[in-house]
Amino acid sequence: MTPTFADIEDAARVLKGLVVRTPLLESPFLNELAGCRLLIKPEMLQKTGSFKFRGAYNTVSRIAKDRRANGVVAYSSGNHAQGTAAAAQLLNIPAVIVMPADAPKLKIANTKAYGAEVVLYDRDNEIREDIAEAIAKDRNATIVRPYDDPCVVAGQGTVGVEIVEDCIALGIKLDALVVPCGGCGLTAGCALAFHTLSPKTQVYSAEPEGFDDTARSLVSGQRETNTPGAKSICDALLLPAPGALTFEINRDLVSVGLVASDDDVQRAMAALFLRLKIVSEPGGAIAAAAVFADDKETFKDKVAAVVCSGGNVDSAAFQTALSISNQ
Amino acid sequence: MTPTFADIEDAARVLKGLVVRTPLLESPFLNELAGCRLLIKPEMLQKTGSFKFRGAYNTVSRIAKDRRANGVVAYSSGNHAQGTAAAAQLLNIPAVIVMPADAPKLKIANTKAYGAEVVLYDRDNEIREDIAEAIAKDRNATIVRPYDDPCVVAGQGTVGVEIVEDCIALGIKLDALVVPCGGCGLTAGCALAFHTLSPKTQVYSAEPEGFDDTARSLVSGQRETNTPGAKSICDALLLPAPGALTFEINRDLVSVGLVASDDDVQRAMAALFLRLKIVSEPGGAIAAAAVFADDKETFKDKVAAVVCSGGNVDSAAFQTALSISNQ
Repeated sequence: MTPTFADIEDAARVLKGLVVRTPLLESPFLNELAGCRLLIKPEMLQKTGSFKFRGAYNTVSRIAKDRRANGVVAYSSGNHAQGTAAAAQLLNIPAVIVMPADAPKLKIANTKAYGAEVVLYDRDNEIREDIAEAIAKDRNATIVRPYDDPCVVAGQGTVGVEIVEDCIALGIKLDALVVPCGGCGLTAGCALAFHTLSPKTQVYSAEPEGFDDTARSLVSGQRETNTPGAKSICDALLLPAPGALTFEINRDLVSVGLVASDDDVQRAMAALFLRLKIVSEPGGAIAAAAVFADDKETFKDKVAAVVCSGGNVDSAAFQTALSISNQ
Repeated sequence: MTPTFADIEDAARVLKGLVVRTPLLESPFLNELAGCRLLIKPEMLQKTGSFKFRGAYNTVSRIAKDRRANGVVAYSSGNHAQGTAAAAQLLNIPAVIVMPADAPKLKIANTKAYGAEVVLYDRDNEIREDIAEAIAKDRNATIVRPYDDPCVVAGQGTVGVEIVEDCIALGIKLDALVVPCGGCGLTAGCALAFHTLSPKTQVYSAEPEGFDDTARSLVSGQRETNTPGAKSICDALLLPAPGALTFEINRDLVSVGLVASDDDVQRAMAALFLRLKIVSEPGGAIAAAAVFADDKETFKDKVAAVVCSGGNVDSAAFQTALSISNQ
């Protein structure tokens, strides 16, 4: 079932006072770097360090009272894991989270700290959905999907609503919105919100090199997959193909899929550190990276908003990005 | 002339839509570290990377039309420099900023990038006020003082107003507020705001070891000075004595002056990076550091807000803080 704008409005009501109302940030230095006016939505400041808390809480809070004691099960490389664990903890619901064994240690430790039981799997040889289904069946628990769920998409769409609200308050007309895209729940939610609230704004997805399934799917009109074995530092965005539900939305509402390299991402992380004093994880910086690295003058002299979607990065990886970019 | 709460309300009207409405952030991990419920006001997200833009814009925007062409002069270790330069640029007023030659390069470069002329001086052998007075006299320009000015204090006080507004919206009763204190304009502004809006909240100043002039002044009841030659990484807070105007306010409205070491500060910078995804400069993290390092159980089981006042730190200094804290 495809979510509607009414579902996003309903999610905004559920989340009011529970999520951080992240501001829009701007720096003249980044505007110069981007060649356009650039507004940054810093969702690393969100509870649990990423936007994922929005969709997770919106979904978990709707589980029927008589099913709550059986708990929730989620699978995630880390941000949806933390978002679901924190949402479940707030609602006093047990949570099991299936995470890849090579996920950043910080994300695994935080998920446990939010009270969840963590089950690790091998990203290359096991299928996380199967593991989660088995656990859910065994415990009669509810699966909280990372993106292919109308409630999750609606929750993420509240990011888009806030961007539009702030732009209206500031008297800004947005030409473009660029959104990090893994399973593309955030992209789909924001695209739905903009379709109603700011239909003239072009929406772009942003993906890492080697994981540009949505960019290619937007061109072909059908869900394309990534070549197995590709690597990227953007651990939050390493998925084989677009979500079914999310692509159904994005196919119609997203203009173009942008792509950035790991180098672009590290430079963007350093620029966001230096100019806006915010900590981006690699996947969280992909949309900013795509704008800074764009050589097609897509955004030249326009007004663009970019979602920085998360900040759950180990100190060592962050320092590497700063050091490389200083050279 | 001592500012009043009405001056802060007036400043809030002037600054509306021009300043970033920074949110209140919270992390269960930091609450555990602090032993209390801790709300962080992240003013590194403010325009120019620190709260200083608030007081500077409130002051510069009130300069009479016929005096604007002569420009403004400010002296500052860097954050008031950038705040004043950016405010003057927005208002099309020329700016000269007197800065110590050993100020962080980032702060000097940014001040120039905001269109200001920078004059460097030797922090140990020259008196910055004298240099600024001479330039102002020569050009018939207006001096924008960093803290001993009612308009500056009123502008900084808008930080306090926002904290109280957000706490009311969240249903939170604040027991304590801790504010970084150099010349103590931010402390004085926030103390004034809280005196009217939340009079039961105890207000604390926070200073680096070796620069605890306000802490000692609060005990003795008169303005005490620091021993010359002390060193600290908190470049924003290295002043010889409390401001005259600001101490007049703080003597009555601030409970106790807290002190933290450079080590405490670096650990706090690392914790704020890891748990809230924000970049603090050393001086900006002093209030958080003082709460985390407090061994007197001042805040135990209480609800405290802490202002993180700025994030203008070089990448190398930031990496040092992360590396030391990882050991």
